[in-house]
Amino acid sequence: MALSRQGVGEKPLIERCKERWRETRLDHFTWVNPTYFKQRFFVCDEYWRPGGSVFLYIGNEADVTLYLNNTGLMWELAPKYDAMLVFAEHRYYGQSKPFPASVLRKHMAWLTSEQAMGDYATLLWELKRELGDPDVPVIGFGGSYGGMLGTWFRMKYPHLVDGVIAGSAAPIWTYKGENPPYDPGSFAKIVTQDASPEGGSAEACADNVRAAWKLLDRWGSSEEGRQSISAAMRLCPESAVESGEDATALCDWASSAWDYLASAARAMGNYPYPSVYIVNGAQPPLPAFPVRVACGHLAEPGLDGEALLEGLARAAGVFYNHTGDLPCFSFKQGPNPETDEDADFWGYQYCTEQFQVFSKDGVHDMFWEEPFSTKAAIQDCKDGWGVEPRPLWATIEWGGKRLGAASNIVFSNGLLDPWSGGGVLANISQANDLVAVVIPEGAHHLDLMFSHPLDPPSVTAARAFEEHYIAKWIAQARSQQRSSLAMAQHAAVAQQ
Amino acid sequence: MALSRQGVGEKPLIERCKERWRETRLDHFTWVNPTYFKQRFFVCDEYWRPGGSVFLYIGNEADVTLYLNNTGLMWELAPKYDAMLVFAEHRYYGQSKPFPASVLRKHMAWLTSEQAMGDYATLLWELKRELGDPDVPVIGFGGSYGGMLGTWFRMKYPHLVDGVIAGSAAPIWTYKGENPPYDPGSFAKIVTQDASPEGGSAEACADNVRAAWKLLDRWGSSEEGRQSISAAMRLCPESAVESGEDATALCDWASSAWDYLASAARAMGNYPYPSVYIVNGAQPPLPAFPVRVACGHLAEPGLDGEALLEGLARAAGVFYNHTGDLPCFSFKQGPNPETDEDADFWGYQYCTEQFQVFSKDGVHDMFWEEPFSTKAAIQDCKDGWGVEPRPLWATIEWGGKRLGAASNIVFSNGLLDPWSGGGVLANISQANDLVAVVIPEGAHHLDLMFSHPLDPPSVTAARAFEEHYIAKWIAQARSQQRSSLAMAQHAAVAQQ
Repeated sequence: MALSRQGVGEKPLIERCKERWRETRLDHFTWVNPTYFKQRFFVCDEYWRPGGSVFLYIGNEADVTLYLNNTGLMWELAPKYDAMLVFAEHRYYGQSKPFPASVLRKHMAWLTSEQAMGDYATLLWELKRELGDPDVPVIGFGGSYGGMLGTWFRMKYPHLVDGVIAGSAAPIWTYKGENPPYDPGSFAKIVTQDASPEGGSAEACADNVRAAWKLLDRWGSSEEGRQSISAAMRLCPESAVESGEDATALCDWASSAWDYLASAARAMGNYPYPSVYIVNGAQPPLPAFPVRVACGHLAEPGLDGEALLEGLARAAGVFYNHTGDLPCFSFKQGPNPETDEDADFWGYQYCTEQFQVFSKDGVHDMFWEEPFSTKAAIQDCKDGWGVEPRPLWATIEWGGKRLGAASNIVFSNGLLDPWSGGGVLANISQANDLVAVVIPEGAHHLDLMFSHPLDPPSVTAARAFEEHYIAKWIAQARSQQRSSLAMAQHAAVAQQ
Repeated sequence: MALSRQGVGEKPLIERCKERWRETRLDHFTWVNPTYFKQRFFVCDEYWRPGGSVFLYIGNEADVTLYLNNTGLMWELAPKYDAMLVFAEHRYYGQSKPFPASVLRKHMAWLTSEQAMGDYATLLWELKRELGDPDVPVIGFGGSYGGMLGTWFRMKYPHLVDGVIAGSAAPIWTYKGENPPYDPGSFAKIVTQDASPEGGSAEACADNVRAAWKLLDRWGSSEEGRQSISAAMRLCPESAVESGEDATALCDWASSAWDYLASAARAMGNYPYPSVYIVNGAQPPLPAFPVRVACGHLAEPGLDGEALLEGLARAAGVFYNHTGDLPCFSFKQGPNPETDEDADFWGYQYCTEQFQVFSKDGVHDMFWEEPFSTKAAIQDCKDGWGVEPRPLWATIEWGGKRLGAASNIVFSNGLLDPWSGGGVLANISQANDLVAVVIPEGAHHLDLMFSHPLDPPSVTAARAFEEHYIAKWIAQARSQQRSSLAMAQHAAVAQQ
């Protein structure tokens, strides 16, 4: 079975890059009592030639090596465009922590998208000078939140980045405000579609999953039922279901596996080939089309009782036990602060400006009824982080549907990707190069990955579409900068 | 002699508006420990009709009533475009002070252009909802720093403002970084041109002014000379020149008068008719073309001795004693905190992000040699405000010469205006409606003022040019919003 790029035996990607650190302002937007922190970034310059370009990965909510290792599109296009690859880490994630771990959670105020963009803006300014080429064209790449950040970065700093490939910048229209008729249930619906024959999965799968929640609810209400659950689902002794609340938590745990398998951010996604994306390179990879594999455990129509729960547990295991090493499941185990801090910090961002709206109804999806409650979500944020989201801020700050004055952004979305329900699926302005590319067989930013023999033709086409614009923007940047300099000189003459 | 608009006997403009206050975040860019302050704005809705538009004055570094009373262009165009006029006050200025006066200077951290734009963004969001018309076209107007803010606001928030008339947003290219071949001496040169025959002033004026500084320097070094200075220049007893430093300070005081007369921001400028702009409506106005009037006191070739200093003092008096009430000049008198706090706060902005570069050489201008020293300027800021400027920030944040990805901005500049040396004097992109209009006989944002019988034809033409774009952008905004909605609906269908 074919492997992704970093598995073919060449020198590991990370060893082809320089890990660097830079001092930058903790708060770019004030001058009183400035403090600084160290931001990490990687520079991979083997393809760089003077007169070339810079490809910048606009880091999102994880260790930036994840993107370095998986953003094959950048690696594959670099030689042709004499491109220097730069992978910039998002503040508070990976190793770019502004405070020691023991006190970091007491200093969250500067974890915002605006501040992260300030980091990227100053980094680019410095890099261009270091290269001795202030006119060097810069193409930004980002997936998921990185794709949204890239979109906003091009909107707000077009003088620093000439164009952006926004891979699965899908949740960009999931905010409150005046966004298009966005269906908050779309995420759960698309997960369900992936687990249905139209997603290549067993016909009975979604109905069995839906039945499983009801059974967990029913059995969770009696001592005997709870024992049956723990046994059928192979729960570890310390994770035995001991109350109705435990049963509910178990539902959350099991349903999350479907979200991740289908394509949660930073997770491996429903890719058409085995992938190690989720585990940042650790083996073994998840199987190809893992939702289909999970559904294989729930393929028999009308499953019930212990057989149903066994199937549900096995399906969840495709995600939670992809190594096959776990003797039992510990759903009660809290997140490991060492490995899960990044996921947790996205929770902080959610609780401030990234307040996205999602719901389920159990009818159009295979989950249960869970309408979105702004009030409850805000209360959770106050309880958990001591901050109150501003639900409208994202739309006020970044425009929501009103992106038409921006330019040079390709929005890509895979239709297998549950996030695509909040994405830009049609051109906004062809004249401004604000264009969309849809990958019917695509999962979460599949197009940004290395090319692969099992890639569906649509993702190959999407990459060609993206390259067309990258080439165009590079040429445009070089010629515009020439003419703007001429303009400026003309202006300088005019004023004499 | 003709009077400007607010003098013709109608109801005063301010009485035709509602003064309103709104709560807004002191820091828009963090979520931890939010605090709020009250921002003032005025709404003048006599011309507003549903389906019309909003004209927003993007307040700069003064009491917003100054702009309300003088931005005639907005008042004159409002009826034709069914426009609601909104005059928004800049935080920390006028009455929009976030803290009580006694402690305000200890809480300067939130006086930034980015925060001011956050105020305007949230104000517009609220206003559009209040009007029940989220698609209402909004045209921004601003002069001087307000014109720069307007430019940046359109760059960063094009989803909220559809186009901007940036009147004399001249200093926009006076920042450090990679701006066009900007001549830091241009301000002093243009003041000198205004005081020369090409500015309609007496031929001997500039040479006499230049000679006066040398005389002040010479006489300032002896007791007898200092007495002669104090007598010739009619200095009040407490402002007598008692040292060489005093003589230097007197030079600063006298040369500032020329800067203001020629057109310092917020000052009345070298307008072609008597104007009360500087004194926010107080009578009597400054005379027409005040630089010419000032030069009238220095018209005799080869003035020297007491006659020269008398002439210099009279010239300064055109500004400092425009009322004719002062029996003597008190150049040592410090700024009055009640009336001069706004000017002082601009000093804070200069010392943070608005770090503009100006110099004199005494050869190409009528002043003395004073090269710009970044180091000294930074030290002054540390001493005065306890903050350190970031000289490159303005260019990193707002793009310097790289404005080409923006759209819908008219840059106007009067060539009598000393600030025009740092302005956009040629089109940046006709395709993007990033266009320049130059007013050879214009002073500092003359085009934004009420029309006047003595207006030179070039300013009338500039206003027509501006109106052309305003009308275009209003039509564009209405039609784009219709098509982006259709797009969004299309996208919503595509995702089903």
